[in-house]
Amino acid sequence: MAERSLEGLIDALRRLPGVGQKSAQRMAYHLLQHDRDGAQRLAQALQTATLAVQHCQRCHTFTEEALCATCSDAQRDARQLLVVESPADQAAVERSGSYRGLYFVLMGRLSPLDGIGLADIGVHPLLERAADGVVQEVILATGFSAEGEATAHVLAQALRSLPGPGGAPLTVTRLARGVPVGSELEYVDLSTLAHALSDRR
Amino acid sequence: MAERSLEGLIDALRRLPGVGQKSAQRMAYHLLQHDRDGAQRLAQALQTATLAVQHCQRCHTFTEEALCATCSDAQRDARQLLVVESPADQAAVERSGSYRGLYFVLMGRLSPLDGIGLADIGVHPLLERAADGVVQEVILATGFSAEGEATAHVLAQALRSLPGPGGAPLTVTRLARGVPVGSELEYVDLSTLAHALSDRR
Repeated sequence: MAERSLEGLIDALRRLPGVGQKSAQRMAYHLLQHDRDGAQRLAQALQTATLAVQHCQRCHTFTEEALCATCSDAQRDARQLLVVESPADQAAVERSGSYRGLYFVLMGRLSPLDGIGLADIGVHPLLERAADGVVQEVILATGFSAEGEATAHVLAQALRSLPGPGGAPLTVTRLARGVPVGSELEYVDLSTLAHALSDRR
Repeated sequence: MAERSLEGLIDALRRLPGVGQKSAQRMAYHLLQHDRDGAQRLAQALQTATLAVQHCQRCHTFTEEALCATCSDAQRDARQLLVVESPADQAAVERSGSYRGLYFVLMGRLSPLDGIGLADIGVHPLLERAADGVVQEVILATGFSAEGEATAHVLAQALRSLPGPGGAPLTVTRLARGVPVGSELEYVDLSTLAHALSDRR
């Protein structure tokens, strides 16, 4: 098994997130044994994507143009800016069909244990973006994990010091915490229930 | 998120074994956000390996030459042929340092539920290989899972009908089942213990 190109493939697959030595080996054997066509397609897709995909100049998400489709859409309400951790989160909000404003995609969240600080997520571009004189409200929609909450906290502090249109301060809001639709109360965790109670309306 | 090259990359990653939609998305975002160099290296490794890696003409394992390093080694005992499911299994036997014969790598095992039958694993090449007039003993070292046992059973039947050197029948053996080295008897499963008892020596 001292085949250099096979070892090279296994090493390259190991760099994928969540893939260890055993999985990488299994993937390499599978591709070479059963799916060489899939291997070629993956190679091509990797090259095409790394060349074509860049960050949207306004919202920082992945796009093949200077501006993504959402930021280029004149029908969206430019006074609202919703901040998410990833393009997947943005897609989830879009699927809800209940938001017509614009987005800012952090492409990460604070995670001091992994060495991911303010500079590694798009905080400075976000502050610049939010101070464009049109945005009135920034909606923080980072996750409700510990890291997502910390990120929202830090961003809220930085954003509240920014001036909005006409010099009035920016409104900074956070997605509501509460009982998920369809849940029975007895199965909702205590912390969620406590938040739902204190945030009642 | 209607970026065609990003969607194409996610689709191509989904063809890897064990990778679903969510993992493929996470891998694609990771590569584009944090490791474009890794993406380029993976594309290169896939192309190099699919071009360079072929099957050894004698033992069917992956190799970059017509014959793999083991089959080309004149020091190995050509009278013994050990049959394994995969190159990873072959590497495990090599690491044990207790085998000096040659190998045959099936590149799979019978799995009727997945539609993998005799023709899909290298049975016919194995029968040809074992009837070369030099091989005296075939050691079946497929796994001890249900599929591995079934594969060993079917192969044993086919191999026992083959003539060995000088017309004598081939000796067909199976790896011993028994108590793993270092185990306490009370923690060994009952079926293993029963086998260890009936195969006592």
